[in-house]
Amino acid sequence: MNNKVAIYRKEHFNAAHRLFVHEWNDSKNNEVFGKCNNPNFHGHNYELVVKVVGVPDPQTGYVMNLKNLSDIIREFVLDQFDHKNLNLDTVYFKKINPTTENIAITIYDILREKIDKQLELQVRLYETERNFVEYPVQ
Amino acid sequence: MNNKVAIYRKEHFNAAHRLFVHEWNDSKNNEVFGKCNNPNFHGHNYELVVKVVGVPDPQTGYVMNLKNLSDIIREFVLDQFDHKNLNLDTVYFKKINPTTENIAITIYDILREKIDKQLELQVRLYETERNFVEYPVQ
Amino acid sequence: MNNKVAIYRKEHFNAAHRLFVHEWNDSKNNEVFGKCNNPNFHGHNYELVVKVVGVPDPQTGYVMNLKNLSDIIREFVLDQFDHKNLNLDTVYFKKINPTTENIAITIYDILREKIDKQLELQVRLYETERNFVEYPVQ
Amino acid sequence: MNNKVAIYRKEHFNAAHRLFVHEWNDSKNNEVFGKCNNPNFHGHNYELVVKVVGVPDPQTGYVMNLKNLSDIIREFVLDQFDHKNLNLDTVYFKKINPTTENIAITIYDILREKIDKQLELQVRLYETERNFVEYPVQ
Amino acid sequence: MNNKVAIYRKEHFNAAHRLFVHEWNDSKNNEVFGKCNNPNFHGHNYELVVKVVGVPDPQTGYVMNLKNLSDIIREFVLDQFDHKNLNLDTVYFKKINPTTENIAITIYDILREKIDKQLELQVRLYETERNFVEYPVQ
Amino acid sequence: MNNKVAIYRKEHFNAAHRLFVHEWNDSKNNEVFGKCNNPNFHGHNYELVVKVVGVPDPQTGYVMNLKNLSDIIREFVLDQFDHKNLNLDTVYFKKINPTTENIAITIYDILREKIDKQLELQVRLYETERNFVEYPVQ
Repeated sequence: MNNKVAIYRKEHFNAAHRLFVHEWNDSKNNEVFGKCNNPNFHGHNYELVVKVVGVPDPQTGYVMNLKNLSDIIREFVLDQFDHKNLNLDTVYFKKINPTTENIAITIYDILREKIDKQLELQVRLYETERNFVEYPVQ
Repeated sequence: MNNKVAIYRKEHFNAAHRLFVHEWNDSKNNEVFGKCNNPNFHGHNYELVVKVVGVPDPQTGYVMNLKNLSDIIREFVLDQFDHKNLNLDTVYFKKINPTTENIAITIYDILREKIDKQLELQVRLYETERNFVEYPVQ
Repeated sequence: MNNKVAIYRKEHFNAAHRLFVHEWNDSKNNEVFGKCNNPNFHGHNYELVVKVVGVPDPQTGYVMNLKNLSDIIREFVLDQFDHKNLNLDTVYFKKINPTTENIAITIYDILREKIDKQLELQVRLYETERNFVEYPVQ
Repeated sequence: MNNKVAIYRKEHFNAAHRLFVHEWNDSKNNEVFGKCNNPNFHGHNYELVVKVVGVPDPQTGYVMNLKNLSDIIREFVLDQFDHKNLNLDTVYFKKINPTTENIAITIYDILREKIDKQLELQVRLYETERNFVEYPVQ
Repeated sequence: MNNKVAIYRKEHFNAAHRLFVHEWNDSKNNEVFGKCNNPNFHGHNYELVVKVVGVPDPQTGYVMNLKNLSDIIREFVLDQFDHKNLNLDTVYFKKINPTTENIAITIYDILREKIDKQLELQVRLYETERNFVEYPVQ
Repeated sequence: MNNKVAIYRKEHFNAAHRLFVHEWNDSKNNEVFGKCNNPNFHGHNYELVVKVVGVPDPQTGYVMNLKNLSDIIREFVLDQFDHKNLNLDTVYFKKINPTTENIAITIYDILREKIDKQLELQVRLYETERNFVEYPVQ
C-alpha cells in the first residue's frame, strides 16, 4: 500500500444545452435524444466533483491546497461554463455533442493542463441527481 | 386545533431560461440580471414541491391520493415545462420574466384550476439548492 | 412579534406496512391503493422531523434540550415503530389505515402527551424523499 | 490511460424484508440479526445506483443511452422488487438471506444478462443513507 | 389571498463554540450541556437559510435580488461568523450562550437592520442535519 | 471477477480544529491556511464513511455485521473525536496538522487495528459537503 490520499472538491454551474448529431436529420435526432433534442435548448444545474490524488506534504498535511484547486476550477471551468449555453457560448461543443460524457472529458482535459502532472486527476459530473458520469476510469 | 393535514409531493423538471425586461436596454438588463441575462440562455434542474392541505378521508386516511396529485402535476406542469425553454417554448413567459417567483406563481395558477377547491394549495420551487421560493405565503 | 423560536429534531425509523380498507374487497383496495396494497407488505425508511415551539430559557438559551426531545422520541415513538410491521406489530393501525397522514397524526398524539403543554408541537413525516406530510397545520 | 467513461443511473424501490437463516433457531437469529429478524418484516426505501463503463460512441457521445439503461432497470429489477416483500414475493430470497450484499449481487446478476457484455457493470445499493454496499469490487 | 412570495437563500459557515452558563459550576454545566460543554470547544458546519417575504416587483419579477441578499448575508453575517470561535471571536456571545436558538436570533437581529422594513424576514439555522431552529415563528 | 462485496457505514462527529505548522510564523501560516489558521479554532460536522471489502459469509450473507462495524467506529473513533478539539483534546494532532488528509489517515490507522486483517479497509472523510478525502487510494 502506498501513502497516497485522494482529495475532492465539489463545485457547480448552471448551463443550457441541446443534444443532437449534426449529420442526422430531425427524425433520427428525436429518436435518439428525445426531449434532450429540443432546438430551443433546456438546462441543468451541473454538479462537478474533481478528484486529485497524491502524497500529502509531510509539513502541511495537504495533497494540494483545496483553495487553490477551487480557484483553478473557477478560473478555467466555471468562468467558461456557468450561466452559458454549452452549444453556442463555448468553443468545445461546436462539433461534438454536449453529453455528460463529453462535458466531463472536456473538463478533465482543461484541468489536466493546469494541475501538477505528479497528481492524478479524475472528474465526476452530475447532470441531474440521477444521471452522472466519471472520467477517466481507473 | 383543526384536523387538517398537509401533504407534499416533490417533482422536478429541467429547463432553459433567460432573465430580462423587454423594455430595458442591454446595459440595464446586465446590471440587474447579470449572468442570468445571457441571450443564449442558461438552465436549471428545477425541484418542485406541491403542498395540499385538507382533512384526511376517514376511511382511506388520504387527504388526496398522492398518485393522483403526481399525475396532475405531470400532465399540466411537467409536460409543458420539462426539457423546454421557458421563454420560447411556453405561453407563460412571453411578456413576464421567468424568475423563480413568476414560475412558482404560474405553476400555482395552473394547479389551482385542477385541484379540488376545498383543498388549500402552495408551491415551493427550487431553482438551485441555494435559491428557492414559496407561493402563496400564508 | 413574539420571542418564540421553533426547534427541530430529525429522527428515522424503518418499517413495513400495507394500505387497505378492511371494509373493501381486493378489487376496490387495488384500485385505490395500487402497489401499496400488497398483502405481503412493503416498507420504507421513514424520516421524522419533530418541531417544538416556545420561548428560549433566558439562562440556557434552550427552548427545550434537544437531547431530551430526542430521548422522548426514541422511547415513545422509535421503540414502538422502528423495524416493525405497522399493521401487525403496533396497536395503532389495527383499524385505521397506516397512510403517512395517519402515522403522523398518531406520532403527534403520542408526543403531545409527553411534551410540556406550554410548547407547541408539529410533526413532519417523510415516507419517501418525494412524499411527505405535516400535522397539525397552523 | 484508456478512453473509457463510467455512467451512472440512480433508481429506487420500496420493499419489505426479514433477515434470518432458516437453519438457525430464533435465539441464534435474534442474536445475529437483532431487530432485522422481526418475523412480521420491516422495510426500506432502497436507492439503487447502476454504473456502466465503456467507450463513448464517437457520434452520439453516449456510452449507453441512460434512457435505455433506466428502462432495463425498471423492467427487470424495479418491476420485480418495488413495493414487494423480498422474502415472500420474489424468487431470489427463498433460501438466501436478503441482506444488502445479497440483494446487490442478485441485481447485478439480473442486469448482467441484459446489458451489452462489452460494457462493465457495477451495482451500488443503499439500504439506508448510512448502510450501503457495492458489487463487484474492482 | 395576498400576492406575496417568499424567497429563500441558503448560505453556510463553519465555526467553533462551547455551551455553558457563566453563573453555573462545571458540574451543573456538564449535567445540562453534556459534550457541548467541552472547555476546548467543538464545532459545526452551520447551514443558514434566510427567508424574505414580499410582493414581487411587477417589472423584474423579483421580491428582492437574491444576489443582493447573498451579499448582505456575506458582509454582515458570514464575515463575522465563518471560521470563527463564536464565544471568543464575536461580540455577541460574551454573555449569552451560543445555542442554535441564540445564534439564529442574533443573525435575525443583524439582518433585520439591513433589509427593507417592508419585507418580512425569517432565519432558519441548521447546527447539524438533525438539529435546527427557526426564528421568528409566525 | 472475484466474489467480494464492499460494505459501507456512514457516521459523523462534530469537532473543532486549527490548521498550522508549528515551525512557521503567523504570517506564513496565514498565507497557507488562511481562515483555517484562526488561533481560537473553528469547527466542522465531519461525515465519516468507512468501507470494508470481503466475501460475504455464505450463511448470513454478511461481509461483516454493520452493527459491529458501527460499534467499533463509535468506540475507537467517535468517542475520541466527537465534540472534541482535535488539536488539544486528542493525542494524534499534537505535532501533525489536523487536515482532512491527516484525520482520515489517523482514523484508518485506528480502525485497521480493530478490523479483521482479511478485510480490506478504506476511509472517506467529509470536512464539508464540498471538501472531502479518501484513504488509502487503491
